[in-house]
Amino acid sequence: MSEYIAPIRDMQFVLHELVPLEQVTRLPGCEEMTSDLAEAVLEEAGKLAGGVLSPLNVTGDREGARWDNGQVFTASGWRAAYQQFVDGGWNALSCAPEHGGQGLPRLVSALVEEMWNGANLSFALCPMLTRGAIESIELCGSDSLKKTYLPKMVTGEWTGSMNLTEPQAGSDLAAVRTRAEPQGDGTYRIKGQKIFITYGEHDLTENIVHLVLARTPGAPEGVKGISLFVVPKFLVNPDESLGARNDVRCVSIEHKLGIHGSPTAVLAFGDGEGAIGWLVGEENRGLEYMFIMMNAARFSVGLEGIGLSERAYQRALAYAKGRVQGTAIGTKNRDKVAIIRHPDVRRMLMLMKSRTESMRALACLVAAAMDTASRHPDTERRAQSQAFVDLMIPVVKGWSTESSIEIASLGVQIHGGMGFIEETGAAQYLRDARITTIYEGTTGVQAADLIGRKIARDQGQAVLWVIEHMRDVERLLARTGLEQADDLAVISKALGAGITALEQAVAFIVSGYGCDVQKVSVGAVPFLELLESWRVAGRWPTQP
Amino acid sequence: MSEYIAPIRDMQFVLHELVPLEQVTRLPGCEEMTSDLAEAVLEEAGKLAGGVLSPLNVTGDREGARWDNGQVFTASGWRAAYQQFVDGGWNALSCAPEHGGQGLPRLVSALVEEMWNGANLSFALCPMLTRGAIESIELCGSDSLKKTYLPKMVTGEWTGSMNLTEPQAGSDLAAVRTRAEPQGDGTYRIKGQKIFITYGEHDLTENIVHLVLARTPGAPEGVKGISLFVVPKFLVNPDESLGARNDVRCVSIEHKLGIHGSPTAVLAFGDGEGAIGWLVGEENRGLEYMFIMMNAARFSVGLEGIGLSERAYQRALAYAKGRVQGTAIGTKNRDKVAIIRHPDVRRMLMLMKSRTESMRALACLVAAAMDTASRHPDTERRAQSQAFVDLMIPVVKGWSTESSIEIASLGVQIHGGMGFIEETGAAQYLRDARITTIYEGTTGVQAADLIGRKIARDQGQAVLWVIEHMRDVERLLARTGLEQADDLAVISKALGAGITALEQAVAFIVSGYGCDVQKVSVGAVPFLELLESWRVAGRWPTQP
Repeated sequence: MSEYIAPIRDMQFVLHELVPLEQVTRLPGCEEMTSDLAEAVLEEAGKLAGGVLSPLNVTGDREGARWDNGQVFTASGWRAAYQQFVDGGWNALSCAPEHGGQGLPRLVSALVEEMWNGANLSFALCPMLTRGAIESIELCGSDSLKKTYLPKMVTGEWTGSMNLTEPQAGSDLAAVRTRAEPQGDGTYRIKGQKIFITYGEHDLTENIVHLVLARTPGAPEGVKGISLFVVPKFLVNPDESLGARNDVRCVSIEHKLGIHGSPTAVLAFGDGEGAIGWLVGEENRGLEYMFIMMNAARFSVGLEGIGLSERAYQRALAYAKGRVQGTAIGTKNRDKVAIIRHPDVRRMLMLMKSRTESMRALACLVAAAMDTASRHPDTERRAQSQAFVDLMIPVVKGWSTESSIEIASLGVQIHGGMGFIEETGAAQYLRDARITTIYEGTTGVQAADLIGRKIARDQGQAVLWVIEHMRDVERLLARTGLEQADDLAVISKALGAGITALEQAVAFIVSGYGCDVQKVSVGAVPFLELLESWRVAGRWPTQP
Repeated sequence: MSEYIAPIRDMQFVLHELVPLEQVTRLPGCEEMTSDLAEAVLEEAGKLAGGVLSPLNVTGDREGARWDNGQVFTASGWRAAYQQFVDGGWNALSCAPEHGGQGLPRLVSALVEEMWNGANLSFALCPMLTRGAIESIELCGSDSLKKTYLPKMVTGEWTGSMNLTEPQAGSDLAAVRTRAEPQGDGTYRIKGQKIFITYGEHDLTENIVHLVLARTPGAPEGVKGISLFVVPKFLVNPDESLGARNDVRCVSIEHKLGIHGSPTAVLAFGDGEGAIGWLVGEENRGLEYMFIMMNAARFSVGLEGIGLSERAYQRALAYAKGRVQGTAIGTKNRDKVAIIRHPDVRRMLMLMKSRTESMRALACLVAAAMDTASRHPDTERRAQSQAFVDLMIPVVKGWSTESSIEIASLGVQIHGGMGFIEETGAAQYLRDARITTIYEGTTGVQAADLIGRKIARDQGQAVLWVIEHMRDVERLLARTGLEQADDLAVISKALGAGITALEQAVAFIVSGYGCDVQKVSVGAVPFLELLESWRVAGRWPTQP
């Protein structure tokens, strides 16, 4: 069974050649992140990913998480691995220093996150969800909530879960029915059922902090009447010790196509007197808070696609080098050769590799822009970077995850008949990848967000700014191509045609969105894919 | 749980509008196949598929086949269903009348086969493999072999299996090591291990007739030293009763990503004195016989892709009509609507539907050409039809199966989070579809066959003949488009560009195959996909 090897060299290439780390390290608060430190972080993370998390990936897939009378048990070895993860301080990597985090630039923590995902996606979901919950509390929680929950969530001693979905409320959160009754003492009693709650129940930590969307009495209908609550599994005493069990129970966990190691819970809130919850921020603004947090989560799911693709590639490459079958085509030599010598196997491997690298490059570009957007001293620069981030997050999410399914499927294909045998391991990546285009908003939801909120709303301003830069790259390629190599000229031409198509599509969206949104929306997903044609540019002339 | 509904109306459309059934019924031996009879056959097959086989699809997936001490047990209800299948005469549908078959035109039996695949692929594999074994014996078996085995194989009382693969011999059958020692009495003793043997062991029938590739002593190395043998599970007495158990044992069955209902056996031949086998045809010509049979099997696997796609579409459509989520975009109406009203869901459904219909149309065109190739009185017409069949079989196989993965995956996507839950059923189609691009030759093997044996070998003659017809369609569309509808002109233009690309690619293959086969082969799979652009033509002006 081949284990995950963190692609540190490829990651360094991105940090030093494509998305200059030096620019990020000049940002306020990032000064300590030297190139050497970044390398050390990647090296250490790579060891944990490859040595500890990766071997547990198949264990999680085979054993799955187990439900027993309301309790959920993770697979063999997972508790110890989680403890090691927490002890190493990995959970706190990208959290804010004021709550005990290490405040690493997103550019670096994104690469580390890719490693967790590549090594063991089911495991990685737990800290990912915890970080989402941390961000919600950081962003809009009261000082008391922050003080009570953040320190232990940042270390990872407690985990977090995001409770949005209900049976009738999936993509459409306006339909949320869970109710929250104020008790007059600052607390609320929460009643309702939530489904598809990742790590909603587990045995990795002694407490779980649920972030729950619910409606207060008399709240407006639809999305404008949803509030966000903190509902801990165990109440927390004033002395920070754990108190009574809260009225939230795990009714069952799902039997899924993939990510078997990650428990997907059905949670019943308030089967008794009601689960005790605390409001986060203001009433009726829950969805707004959730959306800020969700953008971060969507970016993380994009990183899942990249990690899975890298892992699928590594396994397929190892197999292709070792599996001897047939002779080399076009030679007289009748010796059997490894299948990596066969042209179609090479084509598949190259496609897997090049797509994965381009997805990583794009994600890092966006991560660096996140750092700029949150830390740059210049207001305008921050705003422009944020616009770029907002525009590209649905693309990172949609494109990296759709690609991961294709890449994992190619990985199975390279294994031939062995790829279909579960013990081989290649099929797990395909099964795991299949969820990534669905959760945190389907590809269709990403594309609708892209054309509506990110393009039509600002009349295409952000995307036209990106297109302008694409044209620079096209010209640069054409010039260099003329002087040095034909290939670059060919790429420039293809890029040019892609940009023209993109411009036309943007014009169509901007002009049509207001008057015939149905018609424009039919092309949303193909448009999202088209926007990816700019990835061929590779190097971004100036960092956004 | 929604059951399969045979798409009889769509099938009738193909028979009457695209690939005229009347032309096939004019062929010698097909006169009885009136339009009414074809309809009756489709109706009855549809009842069995939807009413009996479809409900067992999920049973097979969940229970799987079970191995116990050399015996293999199929899932609950499967034995009874198989008996019903045999009793109804369905196994004999496309077999030759001289051995008890009904000799239906391939055009009609292909549609029936699509139904079995759509209803329950794991089940359908059993008669599919039996038919392959029947064809091998029919084609080159001695009269004695035919007399002993064919009658009961044609009815389905006995099944057949195809034993090609060994651990070191997958796509490369030159590496087969199983040995066959002549005993001087007309029999051989077979020793060796075969893997990935579909229905190599099961409890559906009392006997199984294995067709086995093996080497005789002193046979040439490589593909020119492989012979084909009949090795029954139980020897057959002169009075046609079953005799001694032969020395072939099922060592284990595989734990697979999909088609759980279909046992995939590891068979040990000759752990004792050697399994008794009989030579089929002449020594050292086994691979040649296998290839004739394999072309038929590849076409059948193409039909698997079509059946699965239809099934995935039906389930996704039903879900999209029933699942209420969100409001209609672009209207003021805030009522919740079924998700089929959302543009991106419609786009996915239309893609699934249109691709499935076009795959079916192409497969039927090829099936009709098979009928012409085997029955037309005119030699030249037969040869031309056969050339068309040979050219298109890798395309039907490669394209329909690759598409089926994509379509089944879209089916999961339409279900959102529910698609990832195994109980929903959509994920099974994706898991099942994933094998179809691998077995009976991977897509890479299909594409290599296409550009090598089917295009380079005849200098592109067959494909250029097809291209000529494509140009006719392009012109027809352009003319009609000018007169009646813009859309047709647009399609004509796109088709024209596709044909031009195809012509260029064919010229590249024909000129490059001899001198730089590596370079040409890298593009083989993309070329196979390109050849499919002609599917937009829809209607074939004259039947090949």
